[in-house]
Amino acid sequence: MSSPALSARPALLFDLDGTLVDSVYQHVLAWREALHEEGLDLSVWRIHRRIGMSGGLFLKALERELGASIGEAQAERLRQLHAKGLLKRLDQIRPLPGARELLGTLSSMGVPWAIATSGGEKTARPTLAMLGIPDSTPVVTRDQVAYAKPNPDLFLAAAERLRVPPGDCFVVGDSIWDLLAAQRAGSLGVGVLSGGYGREELEQAGAYRVYEDPADLLAHLDELGIRAGS
Amino acid sequence: MSSPALSARPALLFDLDGTLVDSVYQHVLAWREALHEEGLDLSVWRIHRRIGMSGGLFLKALERELGASIGEAQAERLRQLHAKGLLKRLDQIRPLPGARELLGTLSSMGVPWAIATSGGEKTARPTLAMLGIPDSTPVVTRDQVAYAKPNPDLFLAAAERLRVPPGDCFVVGDSIWDLLAAQRAGSLGVGVLSGGYGREELEQAGAYRVYEDPADLLAHLDELGIRAGS
Repeated sequence: MSSPALSARPALLFDLDGTLVDSVYQHVLAWREALHEEGLDLSVWRIHRRIGMSGGLFLKALERELGASIGEAQAERLRQLHAKGLLKRLDQIRPLPGARELLGTLSSMGVPWAIATSGGEKTARPTLAMLGIPDSTPVVTRDQVAYAKPNPDLFLAAAERLRVPPGDCFVVGDSIWDLLAAQRAGSLGVGVLSGGYGREELEQAGAYRVYEDPADLLAHLDELGIRAGS
Repeated sequence: MSSPALSARPALLFDLDGTLVDSVYQHVLAWREALHEEGLDLSVWRIHRRIGMSGGLFLKALERELGASIGEAQAERLRQLHAKGLLKRLDQIRPLPGARELLGTLSSMGVPWAIATSGGEKTARPTLAMLGIPDSTPVVTRDQVAYAKPNPDLFLAAAERLRVPPGDCFVVGDSIWDLLAAQRAGSLGVGVLSGGYGREELEQAGAYRVYEDPADLLAHLDELGIRAGS
């Protein structure tokens, strides 16, 4: 008689902006400013709905919504202007309530966790620094994978870094792009409201639980079946 | 035999910020800045969810979420700081796509319309100016009624200015506060996504139709039963 299969200990894969750090609205207005400087005016809510998705797909959506074509040179200028606009707003950005405590608690419980962001190294590094996490934290940024969210690559790479099968990972994110990528990775999706999406949108995109922010998730870790490990 | 009752010609009552003018995100960050200057740090998404509601209720919600009491003097400083922060961001604010065209079309169709905003005269006046509407436009601001949204007073006052029964008015707004106020006024609620709320939230708050923005509403006026009048 063979012994029953054991599921691996679950791990958590976190999105960064809007999930651990209160930076979505600054990203939104940095994009608005970048587009405006290039003579492209787009309603702000449409930008908000695109934060956290792959930059390439963001530009495709822009082209459709503006009815204009964006060349590679202009795309690169937009990326530079956005990064500049975000760095200018860094002093307005804070960790979300409970983010540091949540990550610290997971570490002391022996629960593996990683961060996977559609942002590039340049804009992610200073916000990661606000979280006060060890240098050894597994962090996957846009530069390290072929395709960003809603492709699953970022979360698959993060799971691999933790040596946990994606099916034993919870993906925690504030946007529908995180939750679609979670579904494609075969991970369970958990939503947080702290990026400004509504609960119903996150549920429809596949979140099986939705919490207000990291503090609320920390208070309900038992609902994910997270136990202290040995 | 008495003649059958005739319904009045419908009128439209518009919210301003996020409905006609792309100003919600600037309001959000102006509030964040005002709170921060007073030593109060609140997640940005929580501020976003309160935009468009009565200032008094906003401060009540703040007190609960911050677990701190806000006195009348501090409340007044916050209002002043917010107004200053918004006026500083005026050059980032634009009419929403289709807003001017929608209002112009309604006027040329002979359909009565008005604007009702929870904002005060001081912050509403410069954004109203962007819409290029006649000085004779009926506009009800916070200063003119006892209670702002989600109380129905602003929309009831606007309907009265148009001499149209509230039950024959459509209230058009981007936030759940508009739609709750519409229900209390006995008007039909129409949502727009341009303030950053999701479709499902607006429907749940009572919107019987949801459009993307004023341009999308203009393209579907027939769905509201709006006809050119005599």
